[in-house]
Amino acid sequence: MLYFAGFLGGARLLVPTKNESVLYVYGVNYEAAKETVKDCRVELVKTATGDGADQKVAEQIKKLKLKQVGFDALDSSIFLKLKNGLRGVELKAQSQLVWSLRKVKDKTELGYMRKAAEITNEGIRRAAEVIKPRMREYEVAGEIEYAMRKLGSEGVAFETIVASGPRSAFPHGGCTDKKIKKGEFIVLDLGAKYQHYRADLTRTLLIGKPSQKQAKIYQTVRKAQQKTFDSLHEGVKAKNADAVARKIIKQAGYGKYFVHGLGHGVGLEVHELPTLTSESRDLLKAGNVVTVEPGIYIIGFGGVRIEDTVLIHREKAERLTEVTYDLSV
Amino acid sequence: MLYFAGFLGGARLLVPTKNESVLYVYGVNYEAAKETVKDCRVELVKTATGDGADQKVAEQIKKLKLKQVGFDALDSSIFLKLKNGLRGVELKAQSQLVWSLRKVKDKTELGYMRKAAEITNEGIRRAAEVIKPRMREYEVAGEIEYAMRKLGSEGVAFETIVASGPRSAFPHGGCTDKKIKKGEFIVLDLGAKYQHYRADLTRTLLIGKPSQKQAKIYQTVRKAQQKTFDSLHEGVKAKNADAVARKIIKQAGYGKYFVHGLGHGVGLEVHELPTLTSESRDLLKAGNVVTVEPGIYIIGFGGVRIEDTVLIHREKAERLTEVTYDLSV
Repeated sequence: MLYFAGFLGGARLLVPTKNESVLYVYGVNYEAAKETVKDCRVELVKTATGDGADQKVAEQIKKLKLKQVGFDALDSSIFLKLKNGLRGVELKAQSQLVWSLRKVKDKTELGYMRKAAEITNEGIRRAAEVIKPRMREYEVAGEIEYAMRKLGSEGVAFETIVASGPRSAFPHGGCTDKKIKKGEFIVLDLGAKYQHYRADLTRTLLIGKPSQKQAKIYQTVRKAQQKTFDSLHEGVKAKNADAVARKIIKQAGYGKYFVHGLGHGVGLEVHELPTLTSESRDLLKAGNVVTVEPGIYIIGFGGVRIEDTVLIHREKAERLTEVTYDLSV
Repeated sequence: MLYFAGFLGGARLLVPTKNESVLYVYGVNYEAAKETVKDCRVELVKTATGDGADQKVAEQIKKLKLKQVGFDALDSSIFLKLKNGLRGVELKAQSQLVWSLRKVKDKTELGYMRKAAEITNEGIRRAAEVIKPRMREYEVAGEIEYAMRKLGSEGVAFETIVASGPRSAFPHGGCTDKKIKKGEFIVLDLGAKYQHYRADLTRTLLIGKPSQKQAKIYQTVRKAQQKTFDSLHEGVKAKNADAVARKIIKQAGYGKYFVHGLGHGVGLEVHELPTLTSESRDLLKAGNVVTVEPGIYIIGFGGVRIEDTVLIHREKAERLTEVTYDLSV
């Protein structure tokens, strides 16, 4: 809805191929929608019951005599209601349709994403500056978010992760009241949001001096991230990008500890297309913005992930997030 | 999933009436799930493709020979896939089932919600302390969120709203880079999150001295909020609670400017049951936690909303959020 109409909120958007698009909005959002919406008519839904907007959509489908209607995302309960009320109309789940359009970012979108990435860079800089032993994970998250907010981030792109010690072995570790200790991995995964567009960055820090094993794991992930980044440009198969990172990690003896894909598209949402996994069928295109985020996660020991948000060009890739650290702070 | 299994993340949970519950998780979340999940078995989904977990659920449904399966929330594309693979099984959208269970909060849940509310109180106190002319809306949001984070809030319960001047007339105004001015309404809507439970509070502030019209609007909303709060206890019809606020606002001549319902349940999500609107069929019960949030929104002029998160008892209601301000700061 944001992509087509520039509006975000409880509403329904119908986009017919021939007639004008209509956004159906409840009273609570009506005036705001009228002020911000582009390229479509805004219609007020007066009933306060939850399915008033769905009824309006169904009526419009009948009025325009539409024969086929695809939808982007729709809960099955609404789908079933619509289906019962629209006999003779073919209703199809078509989530890939809009996802596909969103894969290649245009100049305006890239402007917003660059800004989101710049703010994100400042977030990790702030974390590296303030982090110290006995700070709680959520306190570090607070410093990151505050720094990004002051630079204009619209909240966060996703829930900030500050996962330290054994918790760093959980890729989606969130953050807790655990106190950070010297000598343990600290995975920080953060992102700013600007004009609804998001960035996504992970760095792994360690207070003090890493052990030999920690240093080896870190250098392996770093090498995998750099080599994979170097391999990216338009035309590369997403699964081959994943393979570059996986091979380096495997050769270092950590293959089974890389428990997720290489990355994912980023944009209005933090997980978009293309998908960079071993099973992906996507082909990279200039204008794709994707994450490159190999990791090694050893339960009971800890984990390392290094991630940048990267823009694909014809003959190379470009890091939108780019803050360089050694492991130790 | 969080309510039943204590786990939040990309996964599927099957809860049969007789056999054990199973949580299907991808590699990226498997170890974290094993550590945190309660009351169910955790099964690893090895395929990295998106519908691996759905296939596993379908297989388990067949294995247990289940005849009827209801689901809480499911995108229609997944629903259609499951339906095609499970001929002879009745698949039903049953979102109300889990929502209903979540309506009445138990002692543990209320402990978390009280804590979330306490942190939220400190968020608005901080805003009132720092707010001054020429500050940008998002800077105020940053101060609120930073204060809440430092007290242990897990991010925010929802996107913080700081809507000033004409923007205060949009109930869901978000926050922008607009600079705050003396003498205009500033609607601040914020919430902390603790152990995944949320609070929801709105206050309207104004720097300087309000005009007569501003003062009248503010006092009307304040009276509506207080009188409605006073009317709440177990057994009250939700639509009657809405009517108390609506009547007071109407009598003051602002009826058409109260463009949303009185409130909503709060818990693991910011919008839960019961629903407090003129069309609601809900009956309030002891243990419900709901918002009471009347508002007046005049396009081009500005808006006022006052909201607390309130716990329903047998014979009264209790404010969980409770910070008292005059309009002027």
